[in-house]
Amino acid sequence: MRGHSLDPFADRYAERTHGMTASEIRALFAVVSRPEVVSLAGGMPAVTTLPLDSVGSMIGEMVRRLGAHALQYGSGQGDPRLREQILQVMALEGITEASADEVVVTVGSQQGLDLISRVFLNPGDVVLAEGPSYVGALGTFQAAQAHVVHVTMDESGLEPDALAAALGELAAQGRRAKFLYTVPNYHNPAGVTLGEDRRAQVLALAEAHDLLVIEDNPYGLLGFEHEPLRALRARGTDRVIYLGSFSKTFAPGLRVGWVLAPHAVKDKLVLASEAQVLCPPALSQLVVAEYLESQPWLEQVKVFRELYRERRDAALDALTALMPAGVRWTRPEGGFYVWVTLPGGLDAKAMQPRAVHARVAYVPGIGFYADGQGREHLRLSYCFPEPDRIREGVRRLAGVIEEELELRATFLGTDPSRAGGGQSHGQADTPAPDLP
Amino acid sequence: MRGHSLDPFADRYAERTHGMTASEIRALFAVVSRPEVVSLAGGMPAVTTLPLDSVGSMIGEMVRRLGAHALQYGSGQGDPRLREQILQVMALEGITEASADEVVVTVGSQQGLDLISRVFLNPGDVVLAEGPSYVGALGTFQAAQAHVVHVTMDESGLEPDALAAALGELAAQGRRAKFLYTVPNYHNPAGVTLGEDRRAQVLALAEAHDLLVIEDNPYGLLGFEHEPLRALRARGTDRVIYLGSFSKTFAPGLRVGWVLAPHAVKDKLVLASEAQVLCPPALSQLVVAEYLESQPWLEQVKVFRELYRERRDAALDALTALMPAGVRWTRPEGGFYVWVTLPGGLDAKAMQPRAVHARVAYVPGIGFYADGQGREHLRLSYCFPEPDRIREGVRRLAGVIEEELELRATFLGTDPSRAGGGQSHGQADTPAPDLP
Repeated sequence: MRGHSLDPFADRYAERTHGMTASEIRALFAVVSRPEVVSLAGGMPAVTTLPLDSVGSMIGEMVRRLGAHALQYGSGQGDPRLREQILQVMALEGITEASADEVVVTVGSQQGLDLISRVFLNPGDVVLAEGPSYVGALGTFQAAQAHVVHVTMDESGLEPDALAAALGELAAQGRRAKFLYTVPNYHNPAGVTLGEDRRAQVLALAEAHDLLVIEDNPYGLLGFEHEPLRALRARGTDRVIYLGSFSKTFAPGLRVGWVLAPHAVKDKLVLASEAQVLCPPALSQLVVAEYLESQPWLEQVKVFRELYRERRDAALDALTALMPAGVRWTRPEGGFYVWVTLPGGLDAKAMQPRAVHARVAYVPGIGFYADGQGREHLRLSYCFPEPDRIREGVRRLAGVIEEELELRATFLGTDPSRAGGGQSHGQADTPAPDLP
Repeated sequence: MRGHSLDPFADRYAERTHGMTASEIRALFAVVSRPEVVSLAGGMPAVTTLPLDSVGSMIGEMVRRLGAHALQYGSGQGDPRLREQILQVMALEGITEASADEVVVTVGSQQGLDLISRVFLNPGDVVLAEGPSYVGALGTFQAAQAHVVHVTMDESGLEPDALAAALGELAAQGRRAKFLYTVPNYHNPAGVTLGEDRRAQVLALAEAHDLLVIEDNPYGLLGFEHEPLRALRARGTDRVIYLGSFSKTFAPGLRVGWVLAPHAVKDKLVLASEAQVLCPPALSQLVVAEYLESQPWLEQVKVFRELYRERRDAALDALTALMPAGVRWTRPEGGFYVWVTLPGGLDAKAMQPRAVHARVAYVPGIGFYADGQGREHLRLSYCFPEPDRIREGVRRLAGVIEEELELRATFLGTDPSRAGGGQSHGQADTPAPDLP
């Protein structure tokens, strides 16, 4: 890449720049916006179910009333009223011991991840993260030139034994992880949730190994089956930095997220954010504050939840009805994603052009690993398309997988129905060792 | 700082974090918000002169109509319609050879600066910047652990001879600057503008030394005396990266700025931005796009210009009428700032508590240097207070300076009226060697 003759600036970039690549999701953007393609790729929330008339009126009225504030520079830490309201939002997941002074409003929780990376990570530092892991987090770790060590998951999320093993291995090498990054609820992309017992086990391990934990929780209020589990941060520990977002409970176009961090860390995050953006957008923050105060926002979260549950059901039903033998997938209890494992050595990345040709898009699994794993996996998002489209997308994808399996059977002489260990429709009750 | 017992995370921060400090401006925030203090410190635009009713109605109507877009994730590079409109804005300063594909929308131009720092700067890299320089830019260079070499200015801005000398010195050391950072119009904090001839000289030097130039131009349309000078980027060169902002022509609370960069660099900036914030806020971008399209925005810029001109005049008149002998200042032809030089060895940072006690706030000059220079300077912002308040603030400040000079005369036996070389009311026609 360096010294490439087409780029006159190639010899001037920073070291970190040479490792930057477009994510698997971004690379798909042009494709998935074609209307004939059923996109099960992007994680776009269903914002059209918002009452746009009321929200528009609310915003217009707010700007008329508070424009001098909403259109001006604000505090680097974020609007004080909004930070108080964020405390109430977090209380819904059991976080009651927190103060508004520990909250930093960010430009989406992505900026929170980036700030944490900048404040903590030197080049070569080790980060522990689930395998697979959120692609946007991996991007910030990569930009910070950190080394990601993946910890395996199963249908109950991060495996404590695997975490213990990873911590032990690092200690044996005289190394130490800067932090563990985890998405405990309705994991992106794995679609699994960290069980109640495991939460205690993970925190006990963190305590024993003096490990900092980054808890990223954008989907926690979007559960279909039960009340939200108590956040890791809610369990009486000061070693958790918590990230929240209004992107899924309200709207991502505002770019309003937050970090809840111990005071000393909070101070560093604010300084880093000021160097990055001066302050988060006042308009967005006041829109969220008004929305939380004046609109039935929890009712709207219920609307989202019902909508996504219906779409999750459509996806799972279609997978069960249509997928060839050997294909396995997770059964999300909330959130946006199903994680699919292909049988018989199929490669989701190599299969992608044929899927797009068949007018269905997904995200290949390798994008969710920092180390090249994941070729047999893919992520399906059910959050955005209508149920009929989801079914049609799964139907098309099933056809592509079937063809691939037949091709392989023809050339390699394998029996497609026995590929992947011979399970048929192996739902999450028989997960693969590294992930369901 | 490291290992501080009050911060349990002190041993985990990245190297870059240990150098982070609050800027001189941020440190003043609590003080200047007290109503009894006349703040000549912050650079807050006069957003209350915006037609808030029309803007509110426009935004409300836009969200009702385009909410599905305005509230959703968008492209990492920024909204395509807005990027086209930005071309028209830049054409007002002579930039006509540019395409929307070279524009990256950012979360204020601060994010643009930060992205450029991340894409280009390794720790220890040299950046050339005016002395003094924009504090937010210095913050991003510091966060990137770069080494800033200041280049002196006079009443016509950056001095080409000083730039040539700095480039020669670096070359003699076998080093090379990653780029020159410059604010050519109505400089923050110096209040001076790079002359027409100098623009050509600076670009010729850049060409001769294969130097990349970062042109930061938030104030270009806010000139009081003449039509905008042609941007450096408009002068047929491909070695300029240009930064623009809607913070001063519309509203900073939206956090919408942009970078215009050669294609290869643009690609890197987009990747870096995606890692940082995924995408800039769609709501803010659509608000700007609607505003440019449906509102008389150039008329509003004229309103801003007249308002700031009146305030500039109030500041300069008050300085002339009230400042003790030996105090000098620049005469800005646009923008927000006057740069003041104190006589007789006075230290603006040391004087600050007494100024605040006298209920006037300014920013001490040292914040605008990366190397500890600037103690005899201070920045006055006339953009936000009403003219009467500006006069009152200057009156209070003049009293504080007088007292300081008398104190020094009493203790050191100097004649205050002869301090600073004996000039009286030395306006910009007799600038100090390092800056007016």
